[in-house]
Order: sequence, then C-alpha cells, then structure tokens
Amino acid sequence: MNCLEKRIINDGVVKEGNVLKVDSFLNHQMDTDLFNEMGKEWKKRFEGKQITKILTIEASGIGIACIVAQHFQVPVVFAKKAKTINLDGDLYTAEVESFTHKTKNQIVVSKKFINENDRVLLIDDFLANGCALLGLIQIVEAAGATVEGIGIAIEKGFQQGGQIIRNSGYQLESLAIVESMDWETGTINLGENNR
Amino acid sequence: MNCLEKRIINDGVVKEGNVLKVDSFLNHQMDTDLFNEMGKEWKKRFEGKQITKILTIEASGIGIACIVAQHFQVPVVFAKKAKTINLDGDLYTAEVESFTHKTKNQIVVSKKFINENDRVLLIDDFLANGCALLGLIQIVEAAGATVEGIGIAIEKGFQQGGQIIRNSGYQLESLAIVESMDWETGTINLGENNR
Repeated sequence: MNCLEKRIINDGVVKEGNVLKVDSFLNHQMDTDLFNEMGKEWKKRFEGKQITKILTIEASGIGIACIVAQHFQVPVVFAKKAKTINLDGDLYTAEVESFTHKTKNQIVVSKKFINENDRVLLIDDFLANGCALLGLIQIVEAAGATVEGIGIAIEKGFQQGGQIIRNSGYQLESLAIVESMDWETGTINLGENNR
Repeated sequence: MNCLEKRIINDGVVKEGNVLKVDSFLNHQMDTDLFNEMGKEWKKRFEGKQITKILTIEASGIGIACIVAQHFQVPVVFAKKAKTINLDGDLYTAEVESFTHKTKNQIVVSKKFINENDRVLLIDDFLANGCALLGLIQIVEAAGATVEGIGIAIEKGFQQGGQIIRNSGYQLESLAIVESMDWETGTINLGENNR
C-alpha cells in the first residue's frame, strides 16, 4: 500500500450515497507531506514523459497540483469554474457536471496559458464519472496541446470515469482505487495498485 | 525589490477599474518557484511565531498556501465558498463579498480543523477591501484560535483593507503593496516594502 492508500484506510470516512470523506488530509485540510509523496510517485509513473505544464481544476485540485509541480519543475494552470471579470475574453471553455455539488459549471482556461507545444499532465483529487476530467481533456485538445498523462489521487473504481478515460487511450495513474465502500460498516475496499 | 515585486513590474498588467492582472504567475497560471520564495520571506517575517496551521480561501489562495506551508511544516485548511454535501453540518461560517466577482458568498470551515489551540497564519493572494480576510479572521476567532499573522501576496494600498487590518492590531505582511496603477500608461507604483 502506498502512503495515500494507508491514509485513506486510516482517516477516510464513508458516508451514505457513496461519499468518501477525505477532508482531513486531501480536500479541505491538506497534508503537503502526503502531496509530496504523491508527487514522487507520479514522477516515477510518468518517467520519460516530457511534461511542460500541469493542468487542474479549482478548488481541491490546486493544492495537490502545486506541490506535485515541484517534482516536474513546470507551471500549474487551474481551470476556473465561472467567468470572472479578471479573465480576458479569449478562453477555452468546457461544460462539466459536479458529482458533489449536483451542478453544471462552465470551466474556463485563458488561451494564453496552453498552446500547441504543451505536453500536459492533468491532476485532480477525485475521479468518479469523469466529467471534470473530460472537460479538462477537451480544453487541452482545443489548444492543440497533448495530454501526456493523468494523475488522480482517488478513483472510484465502481463508477465509469476510469474506464472511459483508459478506453480513450490515456495513461491514467490513480494512486488509490476504491472498489467498494460500505457506509454502514465503514469499510473501504481498495483495488490492486501495486506498481 | 523582492521577487514578487519584480514579477509584478515585469508581468503584471493593469486593466481599467483598478484591476491588476497577475494571472500569468499568481492566480491562474502559478509559478511555484516564486511561491517558494514568498514562503521563505514570510517564514523570516513571522520568525518566532508558533504557527500550527495555515488558513486560506478558495480558489487562488490554495496554491500559495500549500507551497508556503512547506516552510512552516503545518497543514493547510481552505475556507470553502459554499456549503457542499461533503461537508458536515458542524461548520464555522462567515459572509464575504468578492471584489472580483461582485457577489456575496458564505465561506465555511469545518469545526474539525480549527480549534482553540491553533495559532493560525492567514494566507491569501490579494488584499483590497479586506472582506475575505475579515471573514477568515471571524472564523478563527469563532474557533477560539489565535491569528498569529497574515501573509498577503499583493495589497492594494489605495483600498482600505490593509489599514483596517493593521488598525485592528494584526501583523499583516504584504509582500507587494500597490500604491497606484494607471491602466492607460500601464504604470504600477509599488510602495516601500524593504525589510
């Protein structure tokens, strides 16, 4: 088991509705030592890839992406969830639906920050139905850039996102894959993930 | 001039309406080397303070806070802008108005992650009218914790936030203070900030 998997087993909390709460270390309170371990692991798994940029999505992907970026020595860009007055009109956009919030959001990235020479590593905290990730992929492709790889902290293996993404040919590296959860017993079953 | 000030002069863009765009390095694309320099500087300025936690606010504070947390060896907590189904009911809340988005938001922090023993360093990218910061202070105080210091990347010296915060007795360390801007000439005047 890697550090993240151990942490999920120790500190993850299962809630009704297939919700896995990891807010004590991943997406509300954040443990940057853990994020550094995750960065080392992704650096190994994406060895040989010439990553030029990390792209993530606000809000909970940002902290992980910034710490991980230190291991790849590249800038981070985060997709924003709504158009703000501080963003120029020249934007890549995609529509994503949030599993957590039950809302649809337009996500946007300024055209200044991704171009056709970029080899992008996508980073996010969760992969469930894959909507957020498909939105990020759409933005990278609209820029004519390449998705070199995708690093996810926690994949919900019982939802379809991972399969959709892998079937599309992307190198998807989820550091923990939750195969099943039971909120009544608090059990979390992690899939095989031994590389 | 420190690294951030140089970067603002080189890469900051002034827009009509006193908007300073620093999205190429601070709050859309993010330069983690710069954030590390900022972390070193704040570590120096808050020397002797027993910081136990960094508190910031989504979204653009998160990346800075996570990198800076490595210099203080403490966890980061970010205040969320709306109540999500993944947050327990037991929350500290405050209402803040966004200068950028022209909206009012409820910000929330789970009571699990700040307690009366915490000595909190607040970190954010911008300080203008101070609303976001006053919301964070309100949350720390509701928890019975102590605000040990406040680290801001860019303070708009011509708005009232900095004065309000300093007059309340907090140690506010803004790494760059913009005294005035002129969008027609693109001029950015930074205040004295030589420690």
